[in-house]
Amino acid sequence: MALIDKESGTTVLLRPGENKPPRTWRSWLIGRPLATADAPHQTIGKAIGLAVFASDALSSTAYATQEILFILAVAGTAAFGYAFPISVAIVVLLAIVVLSYEQTIHAYPNSASAYIVTRDNLGEFPAQTTGAALLTDYILTVAVSISSGVAQITSAYPGLYDFRVELAVVMVGLIMLINLRGVKESGITFAIPTYFFLVMIFSTVIIGFFRYLTGTLSGVVEPPELEISHVAQPVTLFLILHAFASGTTALTGVEAISDGVPAFKEPRTHNAGVTLIWMAAILGTLFLGITFLSTQIGAIPAESETVISQLVRTAYDGRGVIYLITMASTTIILIMAANTAYADFPRLSALMAADGFMPRQFTYRGSRLVFSRGIIALAVLASLLIIIFQASVTALIPLYAIGVFLSFTFSQAGMAHRWWKIGHLAPGQEVQERGSVLKYESGWIPKMIINGFGAACTFVVMLIFAFTKFIDGAWIVLLLIPLLVFGFSAIHRHYRRLASRLSLRNYPGDPRLSRHRVILLVGGVHQGTLPALRYARFLSDDITAVHVSINPEEAERIRHEWEKWGNGVRMVILESPYRLLIEPLLDYINEVDARRQPNEIITVVVPQFVPRHWWHNILHTQTAFILRINLLFRPGIVITDVPYQVE
Amino acid sequence: MALIDKESGTTVLLRPGENKPPRTWRSWLIGRPLATADAPHQTIGKAIGLAVFASDALSSTAYATQEILFILAVAGTAAFGYAFPISVAIVVLLAIVVLSYEQTIHAYPNSASAYIVTRDNLGEFPAQTTGAALLTDYILTVAVSISSGVAQITSAYPGLYDFRVELAVVMVGLIMLINLRGVKESGITFAIPTYFFLVMIFSTVIIGFFRYLTGTLSGVVEPPELEISHVAQPVTLFLILHAFASGTTALTGVEAISDGVPAFKEPRTHNAGVTLIWMAAILGTLFLGITFLSTQIGAIPAESETVISQLVRTAYDGRGVIYLITMASTTIILIMAANTAYADFPRLSALMAADGFMPRQFTYRGSRLVFSRGIIALAVLASLLIIIFQASVTALIPLYAIGVFLSFTFSQAGMAHRWWKIGHLAPGQEVQERGSVLKYESGWIPKMIINGFGAACTFVVMLIFAFTKFIDGAWIVLLLIPLLVFGFSAIHRHYRRLASRLSLRNYPGDPRLSRHRVILLVGGVHQGTLPALRYARFLSDDITAVHVSINPEEAERIRHEWEKWGNGVRMVILESPYRLLIEPLLDYINEVDARRQPNEIITVVVPQFVPRHWWHNILHTQTAFILRINLLFRPGIVITDVPYQVE
Repeated sequence: MALIDKESGTTVLLRPGENKPPRTWRSWLIGRPLATADAPHQTIGKAIGLAVFASDALSSTAYATQEILFILAVAGTAAFGYAFPISVAIVVLLAIVVLSYEQTIHAYPNSASAYIVTRDNLGEFPAQTTGAALLTDYILTVAVSISSGVAQITSAYPGLYDFRVELAVVMVGLIMLINLRGVKESGITFAIPTYFFLVMIFSTVIIGFFRYLTGTLSGVVEPPELEISHVAQPVTLFLILHAFASGTTALTGVEAISDGVPAFKEPRTHNAGVTLIWMAAILGTLFLGITFLSTQIGAIPAESETVISQLVRTAYDGRGVIYLITMASTTIILIMAANTAYADFPRLSALMAADGFMPRQFTYRGSRLVFSRGIIALAVLASLLIIIFQASVTALIPLYAIGVFLSFTFSQAGMAHRWWKIGHLAPGQEVQERGSVLKYESGWIPKMIINGFGAACTFVVMLIFAFTKFIDGAWIVLLLIPLLVFGFSAIHRHYRRLASRLSLRNYPGDPRLSRHRVILLVGGVHQGTLPALRYARFLSDDITAVHVSINPEEAERIRHEWEKWGNGVRMVILESPYRLLIEPLLDYINEVDARRQPNEIITVVVPQFVPRHWWHNILHTQTAFILRINLLFRPGIVITDVPYQVE
Repeated sequence: MALIDKESGTTVLLRPGENKPPRTWRSWLIGRPLATADAPHQTIGKAIGLAVFASDALSSTAYATQEILFILAVAGTAAFGYAFPISVAIVVLLAIVVLSYEQTIHAYPNSASAYIVTRDNLGEFPAQTTGAALLTDYILTVAVSISSGVAQITSAYPGLYDFRVELAVVMVGLIMLINLRGVKESGITFAIPTYFFLVMIFSTVIIGFFRYLTGTLSGVVEPPELEISHVAQPVTLFLILHAFASGTTALTGVEAISDGVPAFKEPRTHNAGVTLIWMAAILGTLFLGITFLSTQIGAIPAESETVISQLVRTAYDGRGVIYLITMASTTIILIMAANTAYADFPRLSALMAADGFMPRQFTYRGSRLVFSRGIIALAVLASLLIIIFQASVTALIPLYAIGVFLSFTFSQAGMAHRWWKIGHLAPGQEVQERGSVLKYESGWIPKMIINGFGAACTFVVMLIFAFTKFIDGAWIVLLLIPLLVFGFSAIHRHYRRLASRLSLRNYPGDPRLSRHRVILLVGGVHQGTLPALRYARFLSDDITAVHVSINPEEAERIRHEWEKWGNGVRMVILESPYRLLIEPLLDYINEVDARRQPNEIITVVVPQFVPRHWWHNILHTQTAFILRINLLFRPGIVITDVPYQVE
């Protein structure tokens, strides 16, 4: 089997050759296992990079306008006129955020993930907060994008509306499987649907504008009913801010490029930076265009038909083939957006697990080299959200975006702090700090101002969001993030304490063992007991066989047989008047343990019956197993299973 | 703790003194544990015996009439006239069965359980069939009695009808708890409700007859609607037989006295026999009376109100206090009938488990000296039936009674066979046969004829039942009984094979062990590993430490630390290109195992991390546990857990 590869000191390195794991149902589902050496290393250009990283951001145009209108609807359809100015404000915010991120990309060419930027510049606690915010946000990205994708489908095929939750959960599951397979994202698989969506949606917007300018753009035919139909409330500042907060979901996903800088071709920071600006320009244009046209045609926000669907069928005069193709492209881009979270969530949880803030299992790569546990956790949590909120985008939106803006704020504040530190270094001085090197740069003041302004803006937006959407559901996230941070800290403390306890620094060395006391459990005298007795005799001369007696006649029989087969080993019969098996044994072992001398070790030898088929176990009492569970929490007692098989 | 009580040879008997198990939530729920010596030994007289054993049989009068009417209703209310003649036929059948059982009681003074009678006279296969029939029947006794009890309650309080399933399941659970406590059935606790029921129901019947004879008995006021209201079918022979089959449920429970002969005062067979005749007389009278009056008042079979309820409120002119008291007494007797099954099912399953046909755990007495596992199994299965059949007596009836008649047939056929054997012995000759002694008796021919006739009658009734109720649900039982018999046989084969494999007859003795090879698993070099290393060095000089390497840098670090701490023990590093932990270890152990010499034993020492709190386990991979499960199925490999606690 093995090739002896290296021998140094007393150590031998074995490299098993071709022993690939056998094909199982799992390999059928997610593909054959991949070796660690198979990890891909490839880089991408700007056009492909846009396609790979922009789907999350661009897809939010499919619901951002609708969510603004949903809020304004409280004040009646007349208030829809405010939608366009609100969108302009959001695009200005987009520009500020993008400008701030441009600087981050150049400062962190390896990965400008908000978690890393916060961790390196602001420390552990803000980093954990950012991590909690991002993780909730990724879960919501999946839930919102898939729910919106399903809403596009049910807009085109209203008969499917009743099955929206099932459809959404199945989709989440399929994307999970695809990600567990870990398809090598060749770039082209992303480019086709992204550019397909861009072509279709821009065509719609351009045709819409052309018809608007030529005066041939009609209103929506048979718009869905306005669901909030009670007496119109007045337009207040709160309402405007509320609508603005809903619209800021358009910004979710713009950070994706900064996470993925290492994937770009060299000069990678330049390429990533240019791609980010392209993406922002496309996103801004699309969002403004869709909002403008939607208000012009009098689109109505509704669960039963999306605003995009109303816009597309008005632009093309009905539900024709082009309508269906455009809706399909929108659905696909939304599914791709969810797919982005399947890359982000496992990567971040692995990063945080490696830092000791999450269970270490999240760092393990599965058979297909992906962080399987993170992928499965994401799918389960997103499915739960979809089921709880019945796949309604409008119900999910109040939970969304707050995490995004929290992480924006922290990472940009971290950048501002970094510029401040850089500005206070002597020219030429270099400081090693948490993996990155700080070096004096001139012009740090405007850079600090840009990042600081970005942080301030996103912070204010986050407050607006939390305030206006508190009762709609933002409170859930505001409660959840501290709880998560608390959990991360507890996990971190556990690992740290454990590491210090297990550390061999100042380890005094083990005392020499000199006595070995063996307790052999005997349930009956038969061919299964004797190998255990033989093993016990091999371990030590100081053996006590112990039998728990429930039935005096049975005990007498065992005593008699033991005289014959027990090789002179002392037997203790424990009477159990209450017909308990484990408790008298534990009492006895405790008593022996209490009289234990220093340098004495106690081994409990348990004959373990192994049936031919696992389901035969139900025909036998699992004394050995129950005893093990009870003894595991005793220090200094070793448990030895001597198996006996019937076959 | 212990008192050394007896010392013989090398054996010591310890009797733990006062160490009663602590009070737990379980002892709060079902009472403090009882010592084996506490088992009660008391006998009862005829009047109490009637109360204890007759509740099951007598309670069936609460639904037997109604079930006859339900079937006849298909032919319209005019067909109800057939109910009384059918009841007469059933009472004749009752007389035949009772006569046959009288003889069984005298022949089996220790327990005339159908299972034992069949086993001793017809052999294993018929005995298993009888056992299967009886067990299904006991489950159905609980389901039918409780459902009927709940139907009496909902007749009095129709508002509770929607909660009938919940009510029934809660009742099953309560009776389970009472039986897990193992209330010492003092006889009086049975006598009060049974005689209370007899007084109330006989009063109703007597008043009904008085009013019938004086012409003052009116029809039912506002009877429930006849649920089967389509075009009336003609009265066919099939319909009559069908109604007869439904009515035979009145006979369920008559075998109870024959099971309980040892509980009677001496002369116990005489007392039990007299009690059986009393019971049959009361049952027959009540059943005929109720059927006669019900047809006279035009009672309508319905799920919403029981026939008993209609009869009682007609006899007493409305739902007054006496009505409520009578209904309460009926409900209580039905619950008592269910309680009978809680004694029978666990006893029979313990008997069959002792014979090796059911998992041996059924023979264990719980902390309260009752067969807890049988009680819990019965409650779970009966609850399932109640939920599946929505607590409808009419839906459950087609499954009931077939098992009763099957066991009647087998036990009486067994008795007939026994008389035949007795008749063919020489006078004065005694034959020991399966625990009972056969001795020539004169007059065996009429006795054989009586039992044979009883067997023939019940066999025919069983066929009628199976035929007329096949599609209504009897097929379920006809399928289930062979499956159960198959299962019993498989279990029996397993235990028999195991016993022969484990037998020490012809055991050649163990070869002497001469070599001990120890494999020590090393996940990391820390304070948890070193006690395991120390233990391994104590076991043998031939130790190999094994580390599975997923990360080459980590492996290099461990190799380095091992040089320092490993005491010169050889280390093997297994490269795992597919990042698997268990599989490379198993491959390695297999390879070592393949090269094992005779008289060599292999021990795998696993350092087992024990966290302070069990839930900390989610923060650690359970390698030791997974490895154990995988290795348990390997012969000749001993697994040793050396625990290390952090605290």
